[in-house]
Amino acid sequence: MTHDRQQPAIILVRPQLGENIGKAARAMLNFGLTEMRLVAPRDGWPNPAAGPAAAGADIILDAAKVYDTVEEAVADCNHVYAATVRDRDMPKPVVTPREMAAQMHAQIKDGAKSAILFGPERSGLTNDDVVLADTVLTVPVNPEFGSLNLAQAVVLAAYEFHTFADQTPAYQSAHEDPLASKDELLGLMEHMERELEKKGYFRSEGRRNPLRRTLRNLVQNAAFSRQEVHTMRGIIKSLARPARDDA
Amino acid sequence: MTHDRQQPAIILVRPQLGENIGKAARAMLNFGLTEMRLVAPRDGWPNPAAGPAAAGADIILDAAKVYDTVEEAVADCNHVYAATVRDRDMPKPVVTPREMAAQMHAQIKDGAKSAILFGPERSGLTNDDVVLADTVLTVPVNPEFGSLNLAQAVVLAAYEFHTFADQTPAYQSAHEDPLASKDELLGLMEHMERELEKKGYFRSEGRRNPLRRTLRNLVQNAAFSRQEVHTMRGIIKSLARPARDDA
Repeated sequence: MTHDRQQPAIILVRPQLGENIGKAARAMLNFGLTEMRLVAPRDGWPNPAAGPAAAGADIILDAAKVYDTVEEAVADCNHVYAATVRDRDMPKPVVTPREMAAQMHAQIKDGAKSAILFGPERSGLTNDDVVLADTVLTVPVNPEFGSLNLAQAVVLAAYEFHTFADQTPAYQSAHEDPLASKDELLGLMEHMERELEKKGYFRSEGRRNPLRRTLRNLVQNAAFSRQEVHTMRGIIKSLARPARDDA
Repeated sequence: MTHDRQQPAIILVRPQLGENIGKAARAMLNFGLTEMRLVAPRDGWPNPAAGPAAAGADIILDAAKVYDTVEEAVADCNHVYAATVRDRDMPKPVVTPREMAAQMHAQIKDGAKSAILFGPERSGLTNDDVVLADTVLTVPVNPEFGSLNLAQAVVLAAYEFHTFADQTPAYQSAHEDPLASKDELLGLMEHMERELEKKGYFRSEGRRNPLRRTLRNLVQNAAFSRQEVHTMRGIIKSLARPARDDA
């Protein structure tokens, strides 16, 4: 818990239900955020309902710091974001979670401390809370149904912060075992064509070339592994031989 | 609810708690997804615990279709994603939610129907469920704490699908009222410098130019609106005059 300047603090302002504080902790830890601050939690702190909802993220609850006011909670921060749903018509920039994540990573590089304010479940942040922020964070939602709960708002912010720096490739191909070489694919195609030839699949000379192209594209597109080429050749061999009853 | 081919179906496989079905519906509607399918919900369907948790997204619950098997639930789909946490070591591509969103929008353009399978709360999808999918969806999480709950996994998938096509600018500047022109800014700078000059702020000729550059950068960086320049000039005027007691 010593990496406080490497990540934003998640500040829950006057949270109502201990269960939601626990869920927010769980949401945070899923994406590697560990610094929670609580401003005047309605039911005091610690709250026995928080632990079970944290589902193992108790370490965050145990380390949470409690403040009386938002001013005190943000005192050591350099950049503060206020999560709001409604347009507050305040002279502050408004960013998406993705843009916020990009800004925060730049702030961290500069050695600056960031924080995000999340308001109480029922009412959200007041205008007096939002005034203390540099920037408004608004998740673009369905304009006809904007009803993100507290933990969902936290999970989206934490997810974007994590994803910005995450190295997971967007797409990982299907195979642990190596893809077949073109030579192995050609062997499969020729094997298939040979057996089909014997069964009269191509019927006429005129149909042979177009059909062969269709088959070869099908085999190419399947992107078989070496192992799968082997399996396919077994299947062809099996299909080509007389049925057991015929033997 | 007729736009079924314009969005993925969210398929909850053997969900356990009605409350979580409701929360998933709420997560979906926040991001404009409306087509929910349920495979063998543990406690039957409808489930009285689902409605309250949906927090207004009842329209999705009312329209949810129930199936006995995953096979039946995906029968009309062309591309199926299976949300899993663990690496299944299955010969299937693995994508992030963001990549899935990009693929799905391309699939929709092609007139194809997509779906995402989410497993039961406790155990997740079985390998037999995953076999029915084309692609594995895995949210990159904290490797030391991967514990997304069902509704949070749904919200991330729905969020990425929505965000891909969303037109909200990542950054919206602070001002509804127009930014000041350079001419207005220069007026402010000169006004400030004039009043500071009278009070001896610059002290020596050698300090004047560096100090003036500092002040002018400060005013530039503040990115004042026309209205704020007006306010600033009022402040300077007020500060510059003698205190009331001196008058």
